[in-house]
Order: sequence, then structure tokens, then C-alpha cells
Amino acid sequence: MAVYTQVDDITLSNFLATYNVGTTTSFKGIAEGVENSNYLLETTEGQFILTLYEKRANPEDLPYFLDMMEHLASKGLPAPLPIHDKAGAALQKLAGKPACMISFLKGVSVDHTSPDHCAELGLTLAKMHVALADYAVQRENDLSIDGWKELFEKVRAGADSVETGLEKLIESELAYLSEQWPTNLPKGTIHADLFPDNILFTGLKITGVIDFYFGCTDTLAYDLAICINAWCFDEKHDFVAEKAKRMIEMYDVERSLSPAEIEALPTLCRGAALRFLLTRLYDWLNPVEGAIVRPKRPDDYIKRLKFHQQITDTAHYVV
Amino acid sequence: MAVYTQVDDITLSNFLATYNVGTTTSFKGIAEGVENSNYLLETTEGQFILTLYEKRANPEDLPYFLDMMEHLASKGLPAPLPIHDKAGAALQKLAGKPACMISFLKGVSVDHTSPDHCAELGLTLAKMHVALADYAVQRENDLSIDGWKELFEKVRAGADSVETGLEKLIESELAYLSEQWPTNLPKGTIHADLFPDNILFTGLKITGVIDFYFGCTDTLAYDLAICINAWCFDEKHDFVAEKAKRMIEMYDVERSLSPAEIEALPTLCRGAALRFLLTRLYDWLNPVEGAIVRPKRPDDYIKRLKFHQQITDTAHYVV
Repeated sequence: MAVYTQVDDITLSNFLATYNVGTTTSFKGIAEGVENSNYLLETTEGQFILTLYEKRANPEDLPYFLDMMEHLASKGLPAPLPIHDKAGAALQKLAGKPACMISFLKGVSVDHTSPDHCAELGLTLAKMHVALADYAVQRENDLSIDGWKELFEKVRAGADSVETGLEKLIESELAYLSEQWPTNLPKGTIHADLFPDNILFTGLKITGVIDFYFGCTDTLAYDLAICINAWCFDEKHDFVAEKAKRMIEMYDVERSLSPAEIEALPTLCRGAALRFLLTRLYDWLNPVEGAIVRPKRPDDYIKRLKFHQQITDTAHYVV
Repeated sequence: MAVYTQVDDITLSNFLATYNVGTTTSFKGIAEGVENSNYLLETTEGQFILTLYEKRANPEDLPYFLDMMEHLASKGLPAPLPIHDKAGAALQKLAGKPACMISFLKGVSVDHTSPDHCAELGLTLAKMHVALADYAVQRENDLSIDGWKELFEKVRAGADSVETGLEKLIESELAYLSEQWPTNLPKGTIHADLFPDNILFTGLKITGVIDFYFGCTDTLAYDLAICINAWCFDEKHDFVAEKAKRMIEMYDVERSLSPAEIEALPTLCRGAALRFLLTRLYDWLNPVEGAIVRPKRPDDYIKRLKFHQQITDTAHYVV
């Protein structure tokens, strides 16, 4: 949530000379994303986001993310379009960092999600899954069961400092999920981080899906489970059935959920809750020195996990 | 250089309902300014900057700064125009902070100043001084000689940790300036912080002057001395006479410098160098915990001060 790498005027104008995007009329660092440097660039031709990838991004993964955005944008989904330079390349080097210019998407993130927002998200998510069905490149999800186990080893010693019994809770949940995690459901390319701050609305319409840097190949319904966790609770972190009902219904309009997917939803939701519980717990126990963004407390996801644990049937989500 | 106060969607839309600025199409935190939270707001009517004033800003001073901008903008100078709400007020409260919406100005800051940039700055600075001649409100400059003496007391103990002999250098410079500081030169409303990052260029034309939060009533030629320090040195912090010559010449075209002002320039330049030396030294010795912006080393201004100390005649600046 900052600009880590400064781009000076001469570096910028040399960089832009390799593109057909007109000349700069404005250039401002924006507080978007936690891990990379982002600039809003306005030229005589339009508005763009210029991203410099900082050290947490694996340069080998960047073509996967950019191609994923381009795949979606070219099919009319509201994803940013990577801009190619005169020689045809989208991925660049700028100020010593991997960099990319993408189209700017209009819209505003919502902090207070409504059932209507959730319905629109369900529809968009399903459209993305369908549009990505022929995106052939694969990328393993680092943050699935094996990744959770690794993370747990790093946080178990500190877990009970956040809430008594948390180490035990995670340990038994990991044991449960290792047994129960569905492996035969339809897989494909998922966003894997569709939180409200990664969705831009214009009115009740989604006009932007951003931040594809957790994109990977995984169970499609798991992406839906992530969205249920991220969107279908209220400000006190209590579940709102109406939101989940509308989201699932509208997803199903665009891509039919199989009976097996529906049956697996409670387990997938437990996994999604555990995934964000673990990363938040890790960030909470290992604050980055000098970071302006205070890590979010993991409590909200402890509460979500406990909620999903007592759901035995997907029908309970939607009544 | 960050967003300290988050503004959520509902707070924003309630706030904008009190204005005639259309509806929001985009809203992004920007990394501008060190002390306040700034957002770039795009609506169906245009682009705006929304600023929330954080604790270092004195709320009592805000009307002075906003009126100063409005005074300039209304006379056609490229200053931001504070936007008034339906009831006519420019200064607001938002998310518990004093806040103001101003017009967005196009242009890009230069990191590498050229003599042409300096000429344009000299011209714009003089135009601002002339335009503000009938801005009747007064505000004392907290960072003139008395302010420097106070700052010196806070940094003297640490000064030599930055450079051996620095305490002595500042002490004798303060003694010199207390004796020599000109008090009879034309005064008026000055910007007092016209560094390159506060000026936006479109090509070689200035299309934006921003960040008026050091504005005050002081010697007009002192504002020029600040610009000489900020713009007329090269990347090694060596003086570039051609830059100063063009800046002073073009200033004089729009507002004639009196012989007394010209004669006082070396002293005013020493004062300006000392002012930024002292604030940078203070920030260096008292880093803000958690700040992403690393304070600038005061060395560049030690070098400038020593340069000005050996100038005995303004003519030496411009040959």
C-alpha cells in the first residue's frame, strides 16, 4: 500500500517511448495493493496503471498472471488489459524491477457488501471460470492443503497468543481437511483472492476485477467458497444467508454447479476460512518493519471457520 | 506519502451528496504529500483531489491555505481550486478529519530540472506574488529566524553525528543571519516550499502548483531564494549558474526586483539553505516510526549553505 520504487521523469519518458500510448499528462503513485508499486498514468490516449513488481513477486509467475488478465479482457470480462510495447512485449523492466502497464478500470470498491453486490459477484465469478476454461497454462496453488500445513508449522508456536486453543483448532481442522478435501471436483483457473477491494463497481455492475497475483489452477468451487467467506458476512462477522443465496444462485445461472460441488461447499468454505486465517495469523505474528498497513487480526477468520464447522449441509447456507 | 485515514464507500457517497460534482466513477488513495491523506476522485463531472488533514496540520490555518489557492485559481494561476459544497463551504469534516476537495491539475513533476524549467518557474513565481498582492490575510512564517533558532536547540546535540562541525556551522550561521537578515524588503504572500515535486509541468509549461501548506506572509525575494536552492543545483548538488540566471531574469520580467532585493539574495539564499538544512536534520534525527518515506539526509543542504556562504555578490550567481 505504497510506492516502494520511485520512477523519475526521464526513466518514465524513456519507458513510454517504447509504447504507442501518447504522451504523459499525469503520473501519480497510488496506494493500491500491499506488495507492489503502482502508478496511475494518464496520457493523451487514456488512463493506465503501471505496476512495478517488488521482491515478493516471483518473476517467473508474472507471464501467467498477465496472460490470465489478457485472456479475460479479450473475452470482454472487466479485467485489466496488459498493454504491449511496440515490439509486442507486455512484461518489461523498469527502474530495475519487472514492470507492466495495464488498462485502468473504472469503478469503486464497496466496503459494505449487499445481497445485490453478492449476486453480481456470483455472476461475474462464473463468467470468469467459463472464460478461462480454455486458458491452458497451469499454475499450482501454493496456498492449498500442503501450503497450509507449512504455514501452520510457522505459526503454531504463536497461535495461542492470539486466542487460547487456536493451535488445537487449526491442528484438528487440518487433520479434518486432509481427510475430507475434495479432489474430484471440476478444476480450472481461479482468481483465489476475490475480496471486495479487488472488485470495482459502477452502481451495481462490476466494471473491474483486479489483482490477479494469487491466480492459480484449482477447484472452481473453491473460488466460490473464498467469495462466500469474503463477501457473505456482516460487519460483526456473522453470516448473512441472503448474500450467499444470491451469490450461489447467480453463479449457477452462468455455470451450473454439480451436485458434488454443492455438497462439498461446507468443506470448501472451511478450507477457505482456514487459508485466510493462516495467512492473517502469519502476518499478525510477523509484522513487516516499517509497513504502514497494520496486519488484520485473524479473529474474523477464526469466527468464520467455527461458523462453517457447524454447517453440515449446503442447504443450511441458503436458508 | 500514504493514506492514513480510510474513507469507506458509504462515508464517501454521503459526503459527495453535499456537493454538485456528479457521481463517483473512481476513487483511489494516492501517494502524495507526506503529512495528509490524499485521494484521487473521479466523477461524472471531472477529476478532484480529496485531502484529509492529519494531525500535523493546524485546523485554524486551513482557511488561510484554501483561500490562498482560490485567490490564485480565480486569477487564472494554475493553483487547485477548492470546491465548495451546496451550502458554499470549502472546508469540511470527513471521517473525523478536516477535509477539502480541490480540482485536479494535470502535469508531471520533473526530477531533472533544466534552465528552461527554471525560467518558467521564475515567471510563475512572480505571477503568483503579483496575484497575491491583494490577498489581505496574513500568516506568520513559523520557519523564519525565530523558528530556526528553536529547531536548532532541538537538533544541536545530534548535529555532529551527521557531520563533524555541523553544530558550530549552524550556530555561527544563525548568528550571522540574525545580524544580516533583511527586514525592509517587500513582503507579501509566499508559497515557501516550491520544490520540484510541488510543480506540475505539461511540456515546458507549468500547469500545476500544489501543496500550499507552508504558505505565509514573508519577504517575497525569500520565496525566490527557496526556489534557487530547490531548483538551481545539479544532481551532485553543485550550483548551475545558467538555471539561476534564467529563473531570476524571468522572475524580474513579471515583477521587477529592486536593487535592495538583488543585493540581499545571497543572504536570503543562506537563510533558505539553513531552513531546509534544519528541518531535514530534525527529521533525520527524529524518524517517524512506521513511516515508509525515509527522511532525506541533510547533507545536500549543508553543501548548499557552504556554497552560498562564499557568494559575496548576487552577480556571482548569474555568471
